[in-house]
Amino acid sequence: MGKINYNVNFINPFLQAVIHVLQTMAHVQANPEQPYLNEERKAIGDVTGIIGITGYSKGTMSITLEKDVILKIVNNMLFEEYSEINEEICDAVGELTNMISGQARAKLSQQGQSFDASTPTIFSGRGIEIKHVASAPVLSIPFTTDEGRFVVEVAFESS
Amino acid sequence: MGKINYNVNFINPFLQAVIHVLQTMAHVQANPEQPYLNEERKAIGDVTGIIGITGYSKGTMSITLEKDVILKIVNNMLFEEYSEINEEICDAVGELTNMISGQARAKLSQQGQSFDASTPTIFSGRGIEIKHVASAPVLSIPFTTDEGRFVVEVAFESS
Repeated sequence: MGKINYNVNFINPFLQAVIHVLQTMAHVQANPEQPYLNEERKAIGDVTGIIGITGYSKGTMSITLEKDVILKIVNNMLFEEYSEINEEICDAVGELTNMISGQARAKLSQQGQSFDASTPTIFSGRGIEIKHVASAPVLSIPFTTDEGRFVVEVAFESS
Repeated sequence: MGKINYNVNFINPFLQAVIHVLQTMAHVQANPEQPYLNEERKAIGDVTGIIGITGYSKGTMSITLEKDVILKIVNNMLFEEYSEINEEICDAVGELTNMISGQARAKLSQQGQSFDASTPTIFSGRGIEIKHVASAPVLSIPFTTDEGRFVVEVAFESS
């Protein structure tokens, strides 16, 4: 398996996929902040979509959102006015997770790093703690939107 | 990709891996109850380990445990007396998830269904709801132990 190097060539496909998917699917402008290595390996939020990744290296990609942010995104996507995290919100988080992972993987494949992905899983609840177990540090990419914050996390095996 | 058929040949590798891993690692006797197709696609618990699966078909495997059950398992594994879900508990859940998935995949590979797995991720928090997004029904295998219940869920794409 390949060794993941968290350089800009690796980060950008995820960052661009997030911006592009939210813009085209939900007309939500996501502004990336400085990515960082999350030594605590924890994200906290109200809803998380996660997808397992295999191939060049094995790991995971997750997106963890505050309630107000995901409500805005899904309400825009589905022309709804949901005010609580429900079944449809969870389904939409799964779809977004799939699309972001798919677009990022397509770009990484062009760069010679070919990955496959599992199906996504959605976790919801107040203040869930998420812990990635990959041996490499967790790469966290925080985003701001008009409605609040969310974070995309990418974790891979280091060897 | 292959089509997953939730017959006994598919269920048994997961069921046996769970029993074997908990017995050898933690001296905990896990008693399987009748597996069922979880149409609600939801599990609720205090801590969950999840691992993405690719290859013959894509999907996920998760183990969701009540607090008292995972405390007993990890305290037995590590000769500790933890009374709360902490960092070490989460690490141990990741290790168990990896081992159960690995043993089940080894058995499935012998049966001609070869799978790869991502790294595991751990979710903790009170009453987290988990939703698998695979298109096939979620296969739930409930287990009882002296300390309480846990459930192993397997979800795959149907095509």
